[in-house]
Amino acid sequence: MKVAVIAGSKSDQSVLEEACEVLKNFQVDYEAKVLSAHRNRKELEDYIMKSNADVFIAIAGLSAHLPGFIASMTTKPVIGVPVSVKLGGLDALLSIVQMPSKVPVACVGIDNGKNAALLAIEMLSIKYHELKDKLSRYRSGGIDK
Amino acid sequence: MKVAVIAGSKSDQSVLEEACEVLKNFQVDYEAKVLSAHRNRKELEDYIMKSNADVFIAIAGLSAHLPGFIASMTTKPVIGVPVSVKLGGLDALLSIVQMPSKVPVACVGIDNGKNAALLAIEMLSIKYHELKDKLSRYRSGGIDK
Amino acid sequence: MKVAVIAGSKSDQSVLEEACEVLKNFQVDYEAKVLSAHRNRKELEDYIMKSNADVFIAIAGLSAHLPGFIASMTTKPVIGVPVSVKLGGLDALLSIVQMPSKVPVACVGIDNGKNAALLAIEMLSIKYHELKDKLSRYRSGGIDK
Amino acid sequence: MKVAVIAGSKSDQSVLEEACEVLKNFQVDYEAKVLSAHRNRKELEDYIMKSNADVFIAIAGLSAHLPGFIASMTTKPVIGVPVSVKLGGLDALLSIVQMPSKVPVACVGIDNGKNAALLAIEMLSIKYHELKDKLSRYRSGGIDK
Amino acid sequence: MKVAVIAGSKSDQSVLEEACEVLKNFQVDYEAKVLSAHRNRKELEDYIMKSNADVFIAIAGLSAHLPGFIASMTTKPVIGVPVSVKLGGLDALLSIVQMPSKVPVACVGIDNGKNAALLAIEMLSIKYHELKDKLSRYRSGGIDK
Amino acid sequence: MKVAVIAGSKSDQSVLEEACEVLKNFQVDYEAKVLSAHRNRKELEDYIMKSNADVFIAIAGLSAHLPGFIASMTTKPVIGVPVSVKLGGLDALLSIVQMPSKVPVACVGIDNGKNAALLAIEMLSIKYHELKDKLSRYRSGGIDK
Amino acid sequence: MKVAVIAGSKSDQSVLEEACEVLKNFQVDYEAKVLSAHRNRKELEDYIMKSNADVFIAIAGLSAHLPGFIASMTTKPVIGVPVSVKLGGLDALLSIVQMPSKVPVACVGIDNGKNAALLAIEMLSIKYHELKDKLSRYRSGGIDK
Amino acid sequence: MKVAVIAGSKSDQSVLEEACEVLKNFQVDYEAKVLSAHRNRKELEDYIMKSNADVFIAIAGLSAHLPGFIASMTTKPVIGVPVSVKLGGLDALLSIVQMPSKVPVACVGIDNGKNAALLAIEMLSIKYHELKDKLSRYRSGGIDK
Repeated sequence: MKVAVIAGSKSDQSVLEEACEVLKNFQVDYEAKVLSAHRNRKELEDYIMKSNADVFIAIAGLSAHLPGFIASMTTKPVIGVPVSVKLGGLDALLSIVQMPSKVPVACVGIDNGKNAALLAIEMLSIKYHELKDKLSRYRSGGIDK
Repeated sequence: MKVAVIAGSKSDQSVLEEACEVLKNFQVDYEAKVLSAHRNRKELEDYIMKSNADVFIAIAGLSAHLPGFIASMTTKPVIGVPVSVKLGGLDALLSIVQMPSKVPVACVGIDNGKNAALLAIEMLSIKYHELKDKLSRYRSGGIDK
Repeated sequence: MKVAVIAGSKSDQSVLEEACEVLKNFQVDYEAKVLSAHRNRKELEDYIMKSNADVFIAIAGLSAHLPGFIASMTTKPVIGVPVSVKLGGLDALLSIVQMPSKVPVACVGIDNGKNAALLAIEMLSIKYHELKDKLSRYRSGGIDK
Repeated sequence: MKVAVIAGSKSDQSVLEEACEVLKNFQVDYEAKVLSAHRNRKELEDYIMKSNADVFIAIAGLSAHLPGFIASMTTKPVIGVPVSVKLGGLDALLSIVQMPSKVPVACVGIDNGKNAALLAIEMLSIKYHELKDKLSRYRSGGIDK
Repeated sequence: MKVAVIAGSKSDQSVLEEACEVLKNFQVDYEAKVLSAHRNRKELEDYIMKSNADVFIAIAGLSAHLPGFIASMTTKPVIGVPVSVKLGGLDALLSIVQMPSKVPVACVGIDNGKNAALLAIEMLSIKYHELKDKLSRYRSGGIDK
Repeated sequence: MKVAVIAGSKSDQSVLEEACEVLKNFQVDYEAKVLSAHRNRKELEDYIMKSNADVFIAIAGLSAHLPGFIASMTTKPVIGVPVSVKLGGLDALLSIVQMPSKVPVACVGIDNGKNAALLAIEMLSIKYHELKDKLSRYRSGGIDK
Repeated sequence: MKVAVIAGSKSDQSVLEEACEVLKNFQVDYEAKVLSAHRNRKELEDYIMKSNADVFIAIAGLSAHLPGFIASMTTKPVIGVPVSVKLGGLDALLSIVQMPSKVPVACVGIDNGKNAALLAIEMLSIKYHELKDKLSRYRSGGIDK
Repeated sequence: MKVAVIAGSKSDQSVLEEACEVLKNFQVDYEAKVLSAHRNRKELEDYIMKSNADVFIAIAGLSAHLPGFIASMTTKPVIGVPVSVKLGGLDALLSIVQMPSKVPVACVGIDNGKNAALLAIEMLSIKYHELKDKLSRYRSGGIDK
């Protein structure tokens, strides 16, 4: 498996699906889970520790601690997607992007699961060269939507 | 020990000291620590799990995950103090206060270590009646500053 | 009675009910009231002064002064719940959380009546040990929703 | 006495003085006080109830409840001045201006004690016609600063 | 006539009507107009200059210049009501409340036409004592809604 | 004269000078004035009406009505420059940019007098072709700073 | 052709049409295009470079780079219209208006395509005098809506 | 070379140096440049197109278009660092993070050059395994600052 996509709550489902659809179109192995940083801490920790994913995508709203929590357990890249639940998603955006020094999270736009997946593929393409062509074709409209 | 006061970073020292000073004035046992949710996760977890504190005060800036992280490990009350590092502390405030359902954090004002300590004492006073008198005297100017 | 739940306006009803439902599930005695800090000041004052509640939950939108007003009349812990009426609830959030030194309010997330109730129960559990078990069971899914 | 000027904290002194200086220049009777809505509730209540002022000016920062609290005790006009302590004064501004229906506060700009005094004089000029001339002269530069 | 109520645009109609209804209930003479600071500048200027109103209420959204524009033409009190058109009304609120020194506007809450009318009546009650009783009765529920 | 540069207050002087310096470097005729929309309304109106400027630059802070006020008096293009006095200039930015339909203002960045002047020159270059070359040279570093 | 109207995405269509309708009413030649700064960079660049438009109108939401990108390729005036997609359009507004020194963009209000067109016509009227009369008639209600 | 670090302006120098120091400590090849998306568009384009970097770090304030502009020219991962110039960096943060679908940027915290570098190294570690050990040692304090 190459990408683990984790949503903090069932209500983040549509953003999660948007990310997964892109990964599927690119034929990148992925696994999708709903696990909360606050409500399933132990289970999440086990999952992250055992995961052989190269990249994590973490989707969360409100006090969106999920991406940062994962980032504190691994030195693999973690992509955070803020979800708009209250305040238009500004709370989740700031909770994800303003990580303290030494523990980075790669934040993408509010509710933008698609870009999270594309960013994960860009990261993987450093190693897996076949993804570079696919990304180029995607940009020029070849892989869609 | 009754209150554990934890700051996420050495730079939160002045807020931490403000809280500790109030606890000292009220003769409430406390222990003060600097432990990051992101950089000292394991150590923090051990500390919380073994702690016999009745209340936790967690002080953090930026993506202030510390209070929520502690709240995910205990059902004891957790008080969060947002620290102004960037954006006047709005990032830390929203990261602390907008916790998802089932895992509450009690948020106080930006940089307001004193109020965090007083809130902890108010919580303790439910059980320890001698604190009620002290709180009344403090309000009317008897215990200061 | 152990918890007094007070909403500043009839329009805060759904948040109030969310809080009460949790308290009921935990079999914690509570009393629910609709009283405005601005429109029922005297009545509110009498109510707070005579109340034998251990904890107050105050729910309010806009210039949400209700929690702070109660906090100025008692040294028992006061939990504030900001309600989104205008500006997504940012006005109520800041009115509740930014209390001046010496008069703390424990603020929870916007419209999050459930977390207010859970926080109240956590505070009560310092004294009432049977609540600790219930809280643990609730976290692990035993008491719901 | 015609105008009562009340600041919520000693740290609001410079805004209070700015207001008083304008009132002095217009030879309007005023009384200045430092009384907190949260820390001196009873004293404040007595003061408001006994006051023969026609207009109240209330100056406060953070969760600036002072103007609204006074407005809940009187149907005389209350002018609120938000003071910038945190978040550039946005917290105080929203706490003052977003009053619920039936209990209005007249909010002026952040830290703008001068405009609060001028607004009070404008209100008084509805009854006291000599103030109309003074206001006209002030606008055209005759009464200064 | 005692109060002139001016809206900047036809789309502010509901806020204007809310204000007028209160004035009608209090039997205060008023006149309602729709005049834009930007689109009907000359007509507005003539209207303000000739008006014998004691107080102006100005209702506007977006770059809500109407209250400030009126305030620059008169030393009578001007009450501004921000209307939520974009950004939840934050643009209108800041445009109204942050007036420069020497030209105050009395700002009330977003979309709160009712409070604007009540504030106008409070100002008038400095001179017209019969309004004091009505305001007291209104507060205690006698004059409604 | 081709450009009229008007600041709402003496405290906007440095932004005004930055704009004038660019106009001077481009050898564009300009006139600089300090006139407030609120405090010098009549004088400002006369000035705008009689002006033969092709473009107006209006610089203002707080409730920055100056650009919109000028725009309501002329159909010549008006460029607005928000000045940071409070709230980092967000109040002035929203007051300038959120103009209602039919009365546009061209808003540039906070405190950015230089860009206001360049935008004015770009507008003038539609008619005065010699300015096109100067603008190209300026971009490539020929006219500085 | 005199005005080029470019939207960054098909979802900005209604704002684009609002702008075009005004240009049509004023009988100003224009061309409308949907081209993204990020997804059609090369095509956009070619279009801008070859265009004989006097003024560009660029409509975009989110990280609204389109106006600034066009401004970096031409010294003709560029008008930016922020579109509300997330956060009420605050993201697009700040992305458009806060351009660095030397590369100005003329920003108008959120979703305000009509004002963008009017501002373009005001700019053109510096050269094309017949537009001045039309603008005057439009203001006084002669050309509508 | 593995990482290209590009700042939009000389005033972003300190953030750029913070990033470079981390890359140096990890012995990752990098090249640092100051190139503006708006003022050096052609030069920047050439640089990006010819670059053999695996990852780009783009540092910019205000309307921070640099990261998005680079992202529109390459499918390699682009990390954006918002710099606080105005509004505490909120403008730059939103300009960087809110990218439209199909063109992602990985945004890190305001002024946080160190985290940008660490994120770049995490991305490279997918391919270059020796970096994994270094990252682990860095986290545990072995490689510092």
